[in-house]
Amino acid sequence: MKQVRIGILGIGNMGTGHAKSLLANLVPQAKLTAICDVSKSRVQWARDHWGGNVACYDSQEEFYQSKDFDAVIIATRHYDHPQNAMEALKSGYHTLIEKPAGVYTKAVREMNSVAEKSDKVFAIMYNQRTNPIYLKLKELIDAGELGELKRSIWIITNWYRSQSYYDAGGWRATWAGEGGGVLLNQDPHQLDLWQWICGMPKRVRSFMSFGKYRNIEVEDDVTAYVEYENGATGLFVTTTGEAPGTNRLEITGDKGKIVVEDDKLTFWRLRVPESQFNRDFKGGFGSPECWKCEIPTTGENLQHIGIMRNWVDSIQNGTKLLAPGIEGIHGLTISNAMHLSAWTDDWVNIPFDEDLFYEKLQEKISSSTFNKSESENQTLDVTGTY
Amino acid sequence: MKQVRIGILGIGNMGTGHAKSLLANLVPQAKLTAICDVSKSRVQWARDHWGGNVACYDSQEEFYQSKDFDAVIIATRHYDHPQNAMEALKSGYHTLIEKPAGVYTKAVREMNSVAEKSDKVFAIMYNQRTNPIYLKLKELIDAGELGELKRSIWIITNWYRSQSYYDAGGWRATWAGEGGGVLLNQDPHQLDLWQWICGMPKRVRSFMSFGKYRNIEVEDDVTAYVEYENGATGLFVTTTGEAPGTNRLEITGDKGKIVVEDDKLTFWRLRVPESQFNRDFKGGFGSPECWKCEIPTTGENLQHIGIMRNWVDSIQNGTKLLAPGIEGIHGLTISNAMHLSAWTDDWVNIPFDEDLFYEKLQEKISSSTFNKSESENQTLDVTGTY
Repeated sequence: MKQVRIGILGIGNMGTGHAKSLLANLVPQAKLTAICDVSKSRVQWARDHWGGNVACYDSQEEFYQSKDFDAVIIATRHYDHPQNAMEALKSGYHTLIEKPAGVYTKAVREMNSVAEKSDKVFAIMYNQRTNPIYLKLKELIDAGELGELKRSIWIITNWYRSQSYYDAGGWRATWAGEGGGVLLNQDPHQLDLWQWICGMPKRVRSFMSFGKYRNIEVEDDVTAYVEYENGATGLFVTTTGEAPGTNRLEITGDKGKIVVEDDKLTFWRLRVPESQFNRDFKGGFGSPECWKCEIPTTGENLQHIGIMRNWVDSIQNGTKLLAPGIEGIHGLTISNAMHLSAWTDDWVNIPFDEDLFYEKLQEKISSSTFNKSESENQTLDVTGTY
Repeated sequence: MKQVRIGILGIGNMGTGHAKSLLANLVPQAKLTAICDVSKSRVQWARDHWGGNVACYDSQEEFYQSKDFDAVIIATRHYDHPQNAMEALKSGYHTLIEKPAGVYTKAVREMNSVAEKSDKVFAIMYNQRTNPIYLKLKELIDAGELGELKRSIWIITNWYRSQSYYDAGGWRATWAGEGGGVLLNQDPHQLDLWQWICGMPKRVRSFMSFGKYRNIEVEDDVTAYVEYENGATGLFVTTTGEAPGTNRLEITGDKGKIVVEDDKLTFWRLRVPESQFNRDFKGGFGSPECWKCEIPTTGENLQHIGIMRNWVDSIQNGTKLLAPGIEGIHGLTISNAMHLSAWTDDWVNIPFDEDLFYEKLQEKISSSTFNKSESENQTLDVTGTY
């Protein structure tokens, strides 16, 4: 079968990484044929390194008109993802966007409506969905092994970032540049996995600190409490200011408890569901018999490569997408609700008032005193980051 | 040295347990000489079993006037602890009260003021303070090993209780009987240890469910977020409705992270403090070198026996109390603040309005529809509980 020709829009940290993967033939059914970036110096860098085989553009118009490719990976700034995706889809390209889907759900909803009308394959780089542990966790919960859910707690505080990291990117950690901090840059994967596995909460109450650990204006410390339709509760705790931090997801249900930590999935399985034990037990102190089960999680964690392969496979063979682009709105909805709750110091019901969120975000942008110069931008080696 | 003669007020679950320990000579410097209970059937039971050596009273007045003992253990219902302790201290007895110190801080404050004027030794049964793990944890933090604290998260959800447990005690899990649920009955130890180790928070925002998992009127599911004076945050998550539940305390500071779980204390120690690393590091992605250290926690966990021995030792030799009675107010303050926050669906600053709390509690009592009959009371074997 003919290889899918790929163009990449945005050759910053992530775009460069994806380009290298394609050039290393890690996605055998695809090849990189074009790139585009608004920065002439980045385009020159790309031309110097890849120019022989890859067409390099600094104009999106020329990039799309060239027809040098069949499908486009969008690795621009968060804010631009919805607009870029709509242009790509409308120009007739299969589209894979980097996370997050955008910065505010209002724009992402518009993008989704364009995507739904398009016959092109639209995916999002939720590369943690290729992680065998989370795949297995989702499979167990979907299969009812945990019974009705009662609680989920995700402590994801191992996103340590130094001041020098923030100082290296002009757009980074500003309301105008990223539209948020740890929730927009580091956590989109966990917010997505959380809703993918546990479903969407119905309301959110969150607590944030802005620039608590670093000289930045956005959130670097978040504690969020959520409630689900069935009465289950959830917690999401995240920061970039702690070392070594923790990545521990605990989900409790009627049939026991699952903990994902240290790349292990452990299931404390009740021999009979707790609700049944409670109905039958007549003693004073007593609890259901519980087995500690170490659950195998096999398979390679292909991350970005896995998402690109799945997207290309879907383009060629109609294979089901692991991370459909239109699902990007879910994690962002939780993220936006968390911001809105912290800004208003109040509960936020989902769905929330998207106009109010947009208005509050504009207030943050216009009252910002952080105006980093473009010259501060550096391209960082993202090997080992997500 | 002459043995301290002990009287026990209240021969329910806990009082009976303490009596048995004393009769088994587990506190060598003390002997049980008298008991008192308002229930004539309990007194008769005590007389039948221990009558030869222990004076048995069903009148507190006669009990105190008898002078059969030098020191009294108060193991009555939560509400009665402050009043009972004041009577005991004013009657000239050294006093050890069961936890919690009371149900509302207003009464406990009054008790403390009596205790402060007394020359008698006043202790509280915070028997988890004898646990070598928590002693070690406190020692490490007090010694500055963790540096300035950033976050603490205590997930203490392994208090599983069945409906039959609640049905076995007429006073249990009612506003009039206990004044609360999991926070008043199961969690006083953790609330005390939390403040003992991490200090008192300055404000609290909590979320509770009342009778979510059981047919009870009080809270059986709590998520509480707190903030400390230095900006650190904390979470306390507890329930009686999950199995197998979790008991995991994580504390993060400038110098790393400590986790207490599965009877192990693990210290992820940063080679240089995070704040120093952050000042010096000039790269993109990078974090402080971290050593995983397994900290030894030696010594026997004597629990109730340990507290009784320490109290008796203090009476005889002036030894420093491990759990001074007047410190009982701290954990209860957090507990009351959590209730008030949930009831008002709002922040509660510490110190809070104690009159408002008392008023709200009275409203709960007067609107209660749970009127369990006294005949439902059963004495449960508390071996292995706290």
